[in-house]
Amino acid sequence: MTEHLDHTLRGSWTPTVGTLPPHAAKWLRDRIGLGDVRTPARAPVVPASALDEAARVALDGVVGPGHVRVDRDSRLGRAGGLSYSDLLRQRGDGDLAVPDAVVLPASPEQVVEVLRTCVEHDVAVVPFGGGTSVVGGVTALRGDKAAVIALDLARLDRLVEVDPVSRLAVLQAGLPAPRAERLLAAHGLTTGHVPQSYERATIGGFAATRSAGQASSGYGRFEDLVQGVRLATPVGEWRLGAAPASAAGPDLRQLVVGSEGAFGVITEVALRVRPRPAVERYEGFVVDGWERGSAVVRDLAQRRVLADVTRLSDVDETEVTLALAGGWKVNALKAYLAARGVRRPCLLVLGWHGASEREVRRRRADAVRGRDLVPLGRSLGEAWRHGRFNGPRQRDALMEIGACVETLETATHWSKLSELRLAVREALVDALGRCVVMCHVSHAYETGASLYFTVLAARDATDPIGQWQVAKAAAAEAVAGLGTISHHHAVGTDHAPYLEAEIGRLGLDVLASVKRALDPTGVLNPGKLLAGGTDPAGLASPGDR
Amino acid sequence: MTEHLDHTLRGSWTPTVGTLPPHAAKWLRDRIGLGDVRTPARAPVVPASALDEAARVALDGVVGPGHVRVDRDSRLGRAGGLSYSDLLRQRGDGDLAVPDAVVLPASPEQVVEVLRTCVEHDVAVVPFGGGTSVVGGVTALRGDKAAVIALDLARLDRLVEVDPVSRLAVLQAGLPAPRAERLLAAHGLTTGHVPQSYERATIGGFAATRSAGQASSGYGRFEDLVQGVRLATPVGEWRLGAAPASAAGPDLRQLVVGSEGAFGVITEVALRVRPRPAVERYEGFVVDGWERGSAVVRDLAQRRVLADVTRLSDVDETEVTLALAGGWKVNALKAYLAARGVRRPCLLVLGWHGASEREVRRRRADAVRGRDLVPLGRSLGEAWRHGRFNGPRQRDALMEIGACVETLETATHWSKLSELRLAVREALVDALGRCVVMCHVSHAYETGASLYFTVLAARDATDPIGQWQVAKAAAAEAVAGLGTISHHHAVGTDHAPYLEAEIGRLGLDVLASVKRALDPTGVLNPGKLLAGGTDPAGLASPGDR
Repeated sequence: MTEHLDHTLRGSWTPTVGTLPPHAAKWLRDRIGLGDVRTPARAPVVPASALDEAARVALDGVVGPGHVRVDRDSRLGRAGGLSYSDLLRQRGDGDLAVPDAVVLPASPEQVVEVLRTCVEHDVAVVPFGGGTSVVGGVTALRGDKAAVIALDLARLDRLVEVDPVSRLAVLQAGLPAPRAERLLAAHGLTTGHVPQSYERATIGGFAATRSAGQASSGYGRFEDLVQGVRLATPVGEWRLGAAPASAAGPDLRQLVVGSEGAFGVITEVALRVRPRPAVERYEGFVVDGWERGSAVVRDLAQRRVLADVTRLSDVDETEVTLALAGGWKVNALKAYLAARGVRRPCLLVLGWHGASEREVRRRRADAVRGRDLVPLGRSLGEAWRHGRFNGPRQRDALMEIGACVETLETATHWSKLSELRLAVREALVDALGRCVVMCHVSHAYETGASLYFTVLAARDATDPIGQWQVAKAAAAEAVAGLGTISHHHAVGTDHAPYLEAEIGRLGLDVLASVKRALDPTGVLNPGKLLAGGTDPAGLASPGDR
Repeated sequence: MTEHLDHTLRGSWTPTVGTLPPHAAKWLRDRIGLGDVRTPARAPVVPASALDEAARVALDGVVGPGHVRVDRDSRLGRAGGLSYSDLLRQRGDGDLAVPDAVVLPASPEQVVEVLRTCVEHDVAVVPFGGGTSVVGGVTALRGDKAAVIALDLARLDRLVEVDPVSRLAVLQAGLPAPRAERLLAAHGLTTGHVPQSYERATIGGFAATRSAGQASSGYGRFEDLVQGVRLATPVGEWRLGAAPASAAGPDLRQLVVGSEGAFGVITEVALRVRPRPAVERYEGFVVDGWERGSAVVRDLAQRRVLADVTRLSDVDETEVTLALAGGWKVNALKAYLAARGVRRPCLLVLGWHGASEREVRRRRADAVRGRDLVPLGRSLGEAWRHGRFNGPRQRDALMEIGACVETLETATHWSKLSELRLAVREALVDALGRCVVMCHVSHAYETGASLYFTVLAARDATDPIGQWQVAKAAAAEAVAGLGTISHHHAVGTDHAPYLEAEIGRLGLDVLASVKRALDPTGVLNPGKLLAGGTDPAGLASPGDR
């Protein structure tokens, strides 16, 4: 039944690493001095499991024989996520935190029991779904505990309930997104939630990290989909979601969504679902310059005629996209744009989902009519759709030839968007020197939008992790006061030092107090969300910070 | 500059009580045995102020001379909200909780100082905006404190900032809604937030209670509008709202929105605003029967073609509306509907706001086309709009002639909506005997909708408050497990006993832990949100409940 993921595969999660076409390799050599030399990975060090026998036996008693795994491959496969730094560590650069065991419960009830057992045996718990975190969200830190397990939710893979009248579906947390969609498709339904991590990420992970999918403009962010949650905590189970909207106090669902395994383990979510679209249409456009492009996206958002997928690349990202695509078609396109007077082309991909061709045509007309957009046709839009999950594969190929390659993202209100884009860009260029910094908007709201940066440079062979840490810190400093430290990647370990600048000291105190209520001994995901190296469980009193 | 409200006026907040037309009085007499006899109100007892001199002087030092008021009218004017029970207490039935003083700070900074002063002097604080709570949210309870003040936010009445590019406006909490709209109108903007309490309620109150306006289908609930908050707490000021959306942990704004003054005093909010509509069109329709009517509203919501205002009355509410309207037009209407084969008429009011007639016409066509609706024209829609704030005035008139008259509301998912409506209806009829129970849907979502009940009976002269408490408890029991205890009225004192059934013991523990972090001594709004008579400040340890 279960289509288990092979967690021992990293990055692209395909056994074979892709290769770059020759013209792309040449462009990279010219632009950032990247040599086309394979950089060999070393096998990471995997220490012996620190889980003691009593704990192992107790956990075995909860989840059944064979579902507490201490073999090297299982543990290595859950050793961190998919950030550039995680991949470097997996390649033998820097210290890799490896869980002492992988525990696979089969039900929400078993998850509660696993947590109780871990409290009893002083074992830290890292909830593990698809393992696609790019912010250190699943790093196997043990905090002040004796050992740490990866709590792999792969066996919680059921579509529990469908309520077609209310357009609600209850899904278990360990369901990988493609399988969740196949189960829903049997009912003619979809979540519409398609982030770049789609091929591997899980329903629970989406909820735990406040994910946003590529079609968020049409379907909403994941928190907009979540109607109810079932959370296993060390002090028992917590269920929320009596109604679509409520004034019965604060919306506590929004405290669980984004809690990153620090307050509990999400075991089931009730999601708003929609009929699967009969028609999907993707189209490419070009607009002249970032300012004009972002003004178009803003106007679409504020008139509430956004396409379901709306993605605007800046001049640099557009240039790189065209350079890496290469070929005569691109040259013809450039000539065409020059003839149309477009000097600073920015790619705009729009995608509409609908129940009929007529509906999609009408929405397209509402969005495009009377705007200064150069239509490039559907093939470009379809090319984007076809390649939209390829980022990780490309990264694998780039890392193989010695690249420093990573993404980061933020969001802010429209009036600060350009300032924020420039500030982050400048910080990255200052930190990395010769590099390419690309940016796009892929999530737009009436009051603001996201910014997603992709960075490419030659890897520092001596201290590759340090090289990126400096750049990331510079970008985070640039974000502070102008936007959010994360629009959809979450906090994990990597953003935890910057959280106070965003939510204040009182915000940290509130999160810590919620953690104390639900996880009094601090077994849950030490060092994530609430953090600081000195207080990995986030349990220090406010005065200690 | 400030248009101060006269808080000594209750109910309709007009000095004169309306009268019912003769045909309405006759109908009430026939239907529920309500006599047309004026029931005189007695003057409520106002105890001497318990605020000690040291506290008064200290508060005076913070807010300036004249802004700490201990006179009878000021105190009586902030003695509770506008629930039926509150109005009975104001009329001399039952004990009225009267604040010991009314304190009027002039700035967010002064609010922080007032809170610190109250902690120092052991004084409880009830944040007070428009005083329109119908759930006991502003009852002047002192918990375990020596005295209690009403912290009236009337002087925080500025439009702080407008960002037209981001469609954001920062408004102070004490702004009454009509004044906020006038200030925004000068910029061509509106919040679109128009609840029945509009004439008197404040921006801060909307946020504190998770308000939903009559046009929520178009503009969203108030929590959808809130982009940022500024909260004064006894441990300092807390600001949130770096971006329209974020994955930097849980959305803590949603912990402040709906916190009902128990975690802090909201002093400013940043709201998403929209251009004022050039065109508003309201129209009445009839649909045959509740099941068909709610299916129409559900389909509109799920196809995302809801009107901005969408309000479906059940058969009883429709009957009462027509009976109270009276006259030959109504008789003609009934004959017309009978001729069209409509046997169980349910009124459906739809209202569209738009930038142009063309836009509004198109949206109307999208909503109405091909449905089994009998159009009754715009005059009926306009009549609804004209009278949409009249509920409190009608209640005053009804109370004057001895009625028990109150509203309550809930929400649930579509598949449970009819069951919930019948369960609440039955509970109320069982509890009250001869009565009228009316219901409408006025807030619809893809996954569910609200239900708003209005109840009319003859008042029990001996124990009028007890009469309603029994009915309300029966309705609350009927709601438990099927829906939320409140869709937009909030928790206050009245719903606090039912909150655990909805959010669980862990939910209460989480709220209490947040309160401990922000209000360690429990001065803030005792007995609201977190409650139980034995633990009015919500500060007992979990084991004590």
